[in-house]
Amino acid sequence: MVKSWATSPETLGVDLHIDVGGAGLRSGLMDALREAVRSGRLAPGVRLPSSRTLAQDLGIARNTVAEAYGELVAEGWLTARQGSGTRVAQRAAARQDRAHAHRPPARRSPAHNLLAGSPDLSSFPRAEWLKAARRALAAAPHEALGFGDPRGRIELRTVLADYLARARGVYASPDRIVICSGFVHGLMLMAGVLRARRVREAAVEAYGLDFHWNVLKGAGLRTPALPIDELGTRTQELGERKGVGAVLMTPAHQFPIGLPLLPDRRAAAVDWARSAGGLVLEDDYDGEFRYDRQPVGALQGLDPEHVVYLGTASKSLAPGLRLGWMVLPEHLVGEVAEGKGESDWMCGALDQLTLAEFIASGAYDRHVRGMRLRYRRRRDELVAALAEHAPHMAVTGLAAGLHAVLSLPPGVDERTVIQAANWRGLAIQGLGAFRHPDTAPGEWGGLVVGYGTPSDSAWAGTLEVLLQVLAAVEG
Amino acid sequence: MVKSWATSPETLGVDLHIDVGGAGLRSGLMDALREAVRSGRLAPGVRLPSSRTLAQDLGIARNTVAEAYGELVAEGWLTARQGSGTRVAQRAAARQDRAHAHRPPARRSPAHNLLAGSPDLSSFPRAEWLKAARRALAAAPHEALGFGDPRGRIELRTVLADYLARARGVYASPDRIVICSGFVHGLMLMAGVLRARRVREAAVEAYGLDFHWNVLKGAGLRTPALPIDELGTRTQELGERKGVGAVLMTPAHQFPIGLPLLPDRRAAAVDWARSAGGLVLEDDYDGEFRYDRQPVGALQGLDPEHVVYLGTASKSLAPGLRLGWMVLPEHLVGEVAEGKGESDWMCGALDQLTLAEFIASGAYDRHVRGMRLRYRRRRDELVAALAEHAPHMAVTGLAAGLHAVLSLPPGVDERTVIQAANWRGLAIQGLGAFRHPDTAPGEWGGLVVGYGTPSDSAWAGTLEVLLQVLAAVEG
Repeated sequence: MVKSWATSPETLGVDLHIDVGGAGLRSGLMDALREAVRSGRLAPGVRLPSSRTLAQDLGIARNTVAEAYGELVAEGWLTARQGSGTRVAQRAAARQDRAHAHRPPARRSPAHNLLAGSPDLSSFPRAEWLKAARRALAAAPHEALGFGDPRGRIELRTVLADYLARARGVYASPDRIVICSGFVHGLMLMAGVLRARRVREAAVEAYGLDFHWNVLKGAGLRTPALPIDELGTRTQELGERKGVGAVLMTPAHQFPIGLPLLPDRRAAAVDWARSAGGLVLEDDYDGEFRYDRQPVGALQGLDPEHVVYLGTASKSLAPGLRLGWMVLPEHLVGEVAEGKGESDWMCGALDQLTLAEFIASGAYDRHVRGMRLRYRRRRDELVAALAEHAPHMAVTGLAAGLHAVLSLPPGVDERTVIQAANWRGLAIQGLGAFRHPDTAPGEWGGLVVGYGTPSDSAWAGTLEVLLQVLAAVEG
Repeated sequence: MVKSWATSPETLGVDLHIDVGGAGLRSGLMDALREAVRSGRLAPGVRLPSSRTLAQDLGIARNTVAEAYGELVAEGWLTARQGSGTRVAQRAAARQDRAHAHRPPARRSPAHNLLAGSPDLSSFPRAEWLKAARRALAAAPHEALGFGDPRGRIELRTVLADYLARARGVYASPDRIVICSGFVHGLMLMAGVLRARRVREAAVEAYGLDFHWNVLKGAGLRTPALPIDELGTRTQELGERKGVGAVLMTPAHQFPIGLPLLPDRRAAAVDWARSAGGLVLEDDYDGEFRYDRQPVGALQGLDPEHVVYLGTASKSLAPGLRLGWMVLPEHLVGEVAEGKGESDWMCGALDQLTLAEFIASGAYDRHVRGMRLRYRRRRDELVAALAEHAPHMAVTGLAAGLHAVLSLPPGVDERTVIQAANWRGLAIQGLGAFRHPDTAPGEWGGLVVGYGTPSDSAWAGTLEVLLQVLAAVEG
């Protein structure tokens, strides 16, 4: 029961709302007094009525008021001095005007979304995930809920070692796996390792994600870019760059250009790492999704002591899980685990245990296979629709992943097309958005079509809008 | 079906195990070849049999072998050159001897555990948590599984704002809450803010956790220590230290000494922050557990624009959840969210949604109340047992939290007692383990008894061992 009471000017001079429901009486009075101070209705220095007076006013026991005053003195809201009574403390600030607050801009979702980088979130296997969570929690030892091993739960590292060896050709054992909260977290840990080794430069690819480069820059590394030609990233140039101690790459499916790294280039990367004592950081972001033949195995398998394999559940399940994994050269495991342990960057144990159960039960393979079919169907629909409605535009990067690159006709600026798309409510990016600052514009161009992003129900409509935009360009 | 076959010396010269289950034939052959290369059984440069020969050996189609070779060439395991046949690539490294690997030391659990810092993990409300997870996942919009707001899920920030205001007297709104993966993650984010502001020193308490201090040091801050007297941390000395721009404190229940910060000291901290433009970082690690009266409200309520409130689910639920929260001055929200977003340090969305549901449904309050009764009972049993069996030892820090401090008789070195405890399988620490390097030894001493750590079933036995250890000391 809530009772509103106005005290006389002689006492508080303010309206207070107080819950007089018995046991909550004292705390209700305290809440009301705190709020009055915060809002500025009770100014610093103001003398409060004696507990006897206020108790009479409120029709409650004097003791209740005295206790509330005592608590608020203990909390620092009020001061009580012999002879001067109970007053509002000087430091109990008036509330600031919240309208002036700095707030991050709200993120609004576009009507149609072909931005690359997200899987179809509507396909997350909620029921299967919950089943796995139930089994995992039933089986978990109590210590699993404690702080635990900085490398992550052994249950997850064990099933991942099997899975990655089987599905991705990774040379893995539970001992050399470290669980992290996603690719960027893994990259941060590696950036720390590189900094500790006094590496000054980590090469990156000429096209990629700037927030990945920024992680390396944040650790004080320079990030020169390796050019990309029609055979992929020019790893053979690594040997010519003396300051470089690591290279960050997407060998299975270059992001965003979509090319796989060809055998010679794979070899050149590993050769360089071996002769220069460098590290290859292999971002295997969508290695599970390859459509036309067996997935190309991970580069890491070629030389597990010079390649750090980084994978995540962000594309295969959902980014919101915040689960990733690193497979490390053995001599780096201790260093990375130590860096991770110090920073308290553990992923939640329950999600780790659930993913372990999800993989071990076969649900992960089933989900990946199902999604592969679904994305492949979309890819085929995209290709067919473009062949029919925009025959002059080539599509590349189709062999794998959740995105393709659409080349625009000569003379058409990708920014013009993106603007036209935005006007129709379609969010899409061009290759230019992914260009490294060292790279001259114009070598690569086109739209990055993230066909994995929409839900199944939104896909047809999204494709339709894309075709309208392209028709306007061609027209 | 798994078939083991030994090829003739003329072909591979090695035993390979291969799954000849039809569709898996090619991939089984590839796995076997990869493993043979990795293990060094197929040395770099070795020429492989022709696909025709190997196919005959294996009794499989030549095309299957040719495809497998082609894939392994694409992956860089093999090379194929006109006229030279298919060979093992030079860079396909032999496996290193794993016995030499650096591995983090295994963590073994003690037989009896009174180390402070962990709640009773056996009391984690597994069934209730799963129910909340089920409801949360059923209600979650698809976008909840995406990358999302760096501040964390709005559902959790909303219920936390209500809860913290109600239970801890925090001045909170969803807009100024940022979810993090635990206290240390929040502290790291704040250390980044302080560094960006060119703060050089962050004061800490004379007793505390060194891995907290290390987070601040890692950001380049010096960490001078404020002395602690019998009234708590001497915050009045903040004004005399000119370089200090922030102070890290445990006002509700000093860790590890166990004193609450008294009103004058609370006032002094806020006064300093206001006049010096500094920040108080309030570590409210166990604020929910107070036994003898209403919890002392958070310091943050006194001045939400100069105090950063840091709370976590690590003591109230389990550290393994890796969920914490910061309530920030409004002018810092954008900066912290930006720092967090760049670093990909999001907590898993599912755990956030589950905790939101857990709090909103009242399960969190019920759990905290239940645990409060349980810990209080243990505390009372500890006090009673000590009064009977070790009457010369004083226990302090009893009003709140999951640990108490046991003063040893004069002349008894805490390290001797800890060693004696360890010999009996009891893990326990002394105050000395928490002393800041700037602080002279001897001012505070005694054993830190983490009575919240054991399971209910282990508690009686653990207490018994503690009493035996103390009896030996007194004897």
